[in-house]
Amino acid sequence: MFISMEGIDGAGKSTQVTLLKQELVNGGHRVVDSREPGGTEGAERIRSLLLEGESDRWSAETEILLFTAARNDHYERVIQPALQQGAIVICDRFADSTRVYQSRGKDDLKKRIDSLHSLFIGREPDLTVLIDIDPSLGWYRALARQNDETRFEKIGLDLQVKLRAEFLNLANKEPDRFEVVDGNRDTITIARDVYDRVFRKLMDRRQKEAYPTQSHCLS
Amino acid sequence: MFISMEGIDGAGKSTQVTLLKQELVNGGHRVVDSREPGGTEGAERIRSLLLEGESDRWSAETEILLFTAARNDHYERVIQPALQQGAIVICDRFADSTRVYQSRGKDDLKKRIDSLHSLFIGREPDLTVLIDIDPSLGWYRALARQNDETRFEKIGLDLQVKLRAEFLNLANKEPDRFEVVDGNRDTITIARDVYDRVFRKLMDRRQKEAYPTQSHCLS
Repeated sequence: MFISMEGIDGAGKSTQVTLLKQELVNGGHRVVDSREPGGTEGAERIRSLLLEGESDRWSAETEILLFTAARNDHYERVIQPALQQGAIVICDRFADSTRVYQSRGKDDLKKRIDSLHSLFIGREPDLTVLIDIDPSLGWYRALARQNDETRFEKIGLDLQVKLRAEFLNLANKEPDRFEVVDGNRDTITIARDVYDRVFRKLMDRRQKEAYPTQSHCLS
Repeated sequence: MFISMEGIDGAGKSTQVTLLKQELVNGGHRVVDSREPGGTEGAERIRSLLLEGESDRWSAETEILLFTAARNDHYERVIQPALQQGAIVICDRFADSTRVYQSRGKDDLKKRIDSLHSLFIGREPDLTVLIDIDPSLGWYRALARQNDETRFEKIGLDLQVKLRAEFLNLANKEPDRFEVVDGNRDTITIARDVYDRVFRKLMDRRQKEAYPTQSHCLS
């Protein structure tokens, strides 16, 4: 099963990836966790190109191409092989982050991101956990942990509000893939909620594997 | 007018770009010449990523995405602005090189390269000069000038033969855009041939601009 963890900056995604991994490993699963942009030596080099220099270094379109190049490398070399070997893959950000951050709210760019994703990656996660938090809380946390890679967090509160809305918009469009988790609670409560939803999805999949289709059972 | 110069390694493209530029400048034209992969600071950084390291560092798909990211940057920041200011742009390699080198002869990759090009760049050169040479001559020349960036030239004679065939294949498909020039002659003879063809194309375009359509003249 391929799980992505999404949300605005400061939502607590990486903490939740760590806790979910631990819980799944305790339950006897083989788990591979990774992050984007990055996750392979090549993709990390592309990540550096994206994060270095001035914020207008690349146009939206070039950024979309570079993110997708990094994702393609990561997908081919880490995610796909791990899935083929039966592991659960948990990825901190995946294509939805490109849809939200690189589309800059423009429909034309959203369509191009989707076309590009279909053309090269061609697969969505089986489950996307969206950690949904109050944008002012996310903004406060992101500011508090500023480092050299804060270009993505050099974004005002207004923009955080818009980005949150874009994530919720994606979740509304694909309710079967998304689980929206309230991230305005303490870490352990959120982690339990995330694990419950992942567990339910795992059980659903097992049931489907055991009884592939209703019509098959009846035939 | 946007002109690309294409051909296998060792065809003499960059020499012909220099000579064509000189001739056009002498004729009073404003000319911008550039090369791919590269042509901007950002695209040169992507070029380095592509040429460094082992030859299997990137998959064909990731390579295609990186070449297109570099091309997008180059097109937006150099080619398009120069064309808008009325210059003639001569580019040493453009999308046809990606079609020939990165498709690795596979139809699936060719289609993806074309779709990606339409999605982001969305424009072909007005004229593509294909310097067509005997593959063994190209191979000999490419070997003779080996340097740190010779990964693209670390290709045997068999492959050069195939790459030449792919270039000719593209030229056959788009006879209006391509001019195939015999590159097995001395440099000056080739340069005169190239200039004649570019000059004819320029005259054609001027005529079309003066008399946009036949129907318009008759109306």
